[in-house]
Amino acid sequence: MPISMYQASVPAFLSMLKNLTAIIDKAEAFAAEHKIAPEVLINWRLAPDMFPFSRQVQIAADFAKGTTARLAGAEVPSYPDEEKTFAELKARIAKTMKFVEGFSAKDIDGSEGRDITLTIGGQQMHFKGQPYLVHFSLPNFYFHATTAYAILRRCGVEIGKRDFLGEI
Amino acid sequence: MPISMYQASVPAFLSMLKNLTAIIDKAEAFAAEHKIAPEVLINWRLAPDMFPFSRQVQIAADFAKGTTARLAGAEVPSYPDEEKTFAELKARIAKTMKFVEGFSAKDIDGSEGRDITLTIGGQQMHFKGQPYLVHFSLPNFYFHATTAYAILRRCGVEIGKRDFLGEI
Repeated sequence: MPISMYQASVPAFLSMLKNLTAIIDKAEAFAAEHKIAPEVLINWRLAPDMFPFSRQVQIAADFAKGTTARLAGAEVPSYPDEEKTFAELKARIAKTMKFVEGFSAKDIDGSEGRDITLTIGGQQMHFKGQPYLVHFSLPNFYFHATTAYAILRRCGVEIGKRDFLGEI
Repeated sequence: MPISMYQASVPAFLSMLKNLTAIIDKAEAFAAEHKIAPEVLINWRLAPDMFPFSRQVQIAADFAKGTTARLAGAEVPSYPDEEKTFAELKARIAKTMKFVEGFSAKDIDGSEGRDITLTIGGQQMHFKGQPYLVHFSLPNFYFHATTAYAILRRCGVEIGKRDFLGEI
């Protein structure tokens, strides 16, 4: 079966969100084992003017949610960014996965030419569906997932590329 | 036109490799301005057991080269990992882009079900073309591109998400 807009997006989002959940489990165990307060990891940043771990997870999840909805021409639900614990971050991911799983191939396939408008920093950006997915959503999604991973890796959590990629 | 294996891979690789080149230009200018020896940035690591900047760039480039060739059923050329300067890293990227640009949609479209075998750490991995691209190559490619970016960002190079995404 030829690759499609659905196949290039939803399964990729769901795998990585699942992997992020498993990575958070390892971070939680690491914090407990080393008697590190969980909020130290949750608030850790790679640089003072970069987002902390919690925000990286929220943004990655939001790219999965927003991209799936926009490609399907559906409303993008807004989730408040209030997570302060590993459990809350995992719940945010689970809620996002449930939302993404609510879309099927027939909702998203054929969205290559769909007009998509985003407002970022007060500025409107206009895309067609395919470049939006290939050049904006996927790079952004993986950017924040990788940065979340890198923060934990930097803090000593025992994770490797296999955790990032999960079961393929 | 429906998304295809070519459209989901080659243009994504080429954009990000171009963006990495522009990011390296900024790193080079930053090092000169702050009188930091370029090799300090080139050898910087986010953690002692993570790869340095140079290796992150080499691996990102190799995922672009290897994925493009394998999807097309072509031989994967081996490039030696010898780059020690920003100029050499940019040349490695340019050489990789030229290789990737040598493939057209007709070489890669229809590769969804192609059998792909990789040997990683002495172990053989077997994929079909589509999951290889969606769940292995793209996440790995963006993982190393993001980590390269994060190393420079951590070192103070004035780059932002706009540099990572480039012109869309």
